[in-house]
Amino acid sequence: MDIAVLGAGSWGTALSFVLADNGHRVHLWARRKELAAEINGRRTNERYLPGCTVPESVQAYTDLGEAVHGVRHVVLAVPSQTVGEVATQLNGQLEPDAYVLHAVKGIDVKTGRRMSEVILDACPGLEHRRLAVLSGPSHAEEVARRLPTTVVVAGFSPQGAEVWQRLLMNLRFRVYTHSDVVGVELGGSLKNIIAIGVGLSDGLGFGDNAKAALMTRGLHEIARLGFRLGAVPLTFAGLAGVGDLIVTCTSRHSRNRRAGLMLAEGRPLDEVLQGMGMVVEGVYTTRAAVELSEKAGVEMPIAKATFAVLFEKENPRRAVEELMGRTPKQEWVADLWQGPSDWSRGGDL
Amino acid sequence: MDIAVLGAGSWGTALSFVLADNGHRVHLWARRKELAAEINGRRTNERYLPGCTVPESVQAYTDLGEAVHGVRHVVLAVPSQTVGEVATQLNGQLEPDAYVLHAVKGIDVKTGRRMSEVILDACPGLEHRRLAVLSGPSHAEEVARRLPTTVVVAGFSPQGAEVWQRLLMNLRFRVYTHSDVVGVELGGSLKNIIAIGVGLSDGLGFGDNAKAALMTRGLHEIARLGFRLGAVPLTFAGLAGVGDLIVTCTSRHSRNRRAGLMLAEGRPLDEVLQGMGMVVEGVYTTRAAVELSEKAGVEMPIAKATFAVLFEKENPRRAVEELMGRTPKQEWVADLWQGPSDWSRGGDL
Repeated sequence: MDIAVLGAGSWGTALSFVLADNGHRVHLWARRKELAAEINGRRTNERYLPGCTVPESVQAYTDLGEAVHGVRHVVLAVPSQTVGEVATQLNGQLEPDAYVLHAVKGIDVKTGRRMSEVILDACPGLEHRRLAVLSGPSHAEEVARRLPTTVVVAGFSPQGAEVWQRLLMNLRFRVYTHSDVVGVELGGSLKNIIAIGVGLSDGLGFGDNAKAALMTRGLHEIARLGFRLGAVPLTFAGLAGVGDLIVTCTSRHSRNRRAGLMLAEGRPLDEVLQGMGMVVEGVYTTRAAVELSEKAGVEMPIAKATFAVLFEKENPRRAVEELMGRTPKQEWVADLWQGPSDWSRGGDL
Repeated sequence: MDIAVLGAGSWGTALSFVLADNGHRVHLWARRKELAAEINGRRTNERYLPGCTVPESVQAYTDLGEAVHGVRHVVLAVPSQTVGEVATQLNGQLEPDAYVLHAVKGIDVKTGRRMSEVILDACPGLEHRRLAVLSGPSHAEEVARRLPTTVVVAGFSPQGAEVWQRLLMNLRFRVYTHSDVVGVELGGSLKNIIAIGVGLSDGLGFGDNAKAALMTRGLHEIARLGFRLGAVPLTFAGLAGVGDLIVTCTSRHSRNRRAGLMLAEGRPLDEVLQGMGMVVEGVYTTRAAVELSEKAGVEMPIAKATFAVLFEKENPRRAVEELMGRTPKQEWVADLWQGPSDWSRGGDL
């Protein structure tokens, strides 16, 4: 089958390997001509997936219309802040019966919308039931090396998700379907807040106990906010929640965790972001989440502490001490995951 | 207040530091006379907590009866397989209105009982409501170094848990109370199965995606079994579940994970266990869990794969491939955490 993958960064390219391994012809759209030429000529993508060979059945395109022409399955894997623009381009070109899968983790900074909202707004011809989101613990480099990986695909309809399970699943890439688009999208974005917090804690030498505590309690407050925004809280106990959180918080490659490590050294945020040379999604997500949580009346002590360190010059050590010094609590696990009845008590740790 | 801590290993000693920091006088019972003399004389415990100074308000005893005489708060922190024997000794000596907290992770190998069952059976004078369990992500070495740590204390009654929250909590040691004794006890034990599986995966070089997948899916099957054994599944989303799992699976100090790493090299189990020189709890727990899951009709594919590698000479690489090659599934998060309705479908990944 012919499948278009829009975005030839590390993630789009790795997903095109999975599809090619499963016998499909991939139309891989790259914005830059040099990159398309490299992929089609030398069969490499040295900048994003160094050392990997691009399978022969992957063909790079620079014209988006050409890449999706006559194609009924389209994967979107571009940076989150360009999704709106690409989806707008897609609108006139998409086949009317096409299925779209996005594999983008992030929130639109200006409007606070989730990626599926951005796509549907920009692409009015696309029906909800034909759109799905892929997320989960999946470093692109490992997928490209064919290391075992599991992901979830959440759709607005069972078919919208199952079609991608059939196309993507193989012995190295296990796909679970899911029905909670909102939860799966939020899990992938909000976890970056906790990754910054974990970086702060690690940078202060606080150890494994503190790290596990931040991750566990962070997961709870993410679920609390997610619930208010329409997610099923239980989604956060799955691959797109705790699974992705684990990969992000324990990997040395995570930019968000690295930003936390540098902040813990006392460096100002501007310097940290400049030194990184790349977008640190979690910084924007922290601001968005704190704003949203205040509006919604959801307590998020870890996100607030991270916010204070990022934007209010709070001392990282004092921020952690404040978290630990909160009044004694029950672990409201049951209330948290079961429903809203005791939601307002929330905010523990 | 005078508080007895039975067991002067790393965990019992670290807990006595917490209590001493909070202004209590600790009666620390050590089985070996040499250790008690070292603690009272040089104020060290070099074997279990090298480099630490034992506070002056901690006094070591070798006579159990003396240690608990006139004391209304007793902490049990001995190796799991000796809990029955110590609790039997305690039976005649315990003050009738005493509160008991156990901080032991494990299952009685011979009978499959949880630690609270062992204690209550051996100590018929002790009422349920006066017994509690402490668990969570808490390396003793880090607690002894006063690094930030969070734990849960689950009791059969609110007072049974809250009394320990008051005694133990401080700015470095945050205590959440909990009502699910069964879940908190099982979380601490069953997580060791997954730690062996993660060691296998890491040893085979399978990467961070696979590790996060094993931990997330492992958490689900633990919760599934736990539910059948009387736990609240949601407990496994908390500090005694995912929190402890994170600490165990990401730490280089975990014996269970290390055993998995050595098995991945193709070494036979006997050799691995001999090389370790210490009990690897997860090996016994895996056998117990597989037996229990078969009786209860709960699918536990990861525990079963770990069992096959441990006891049936299964090739670790093939075991992981079999896990990945299972039929396509939905991520049954909702069913798993919300209740038993779809329990029988279980067993995904």
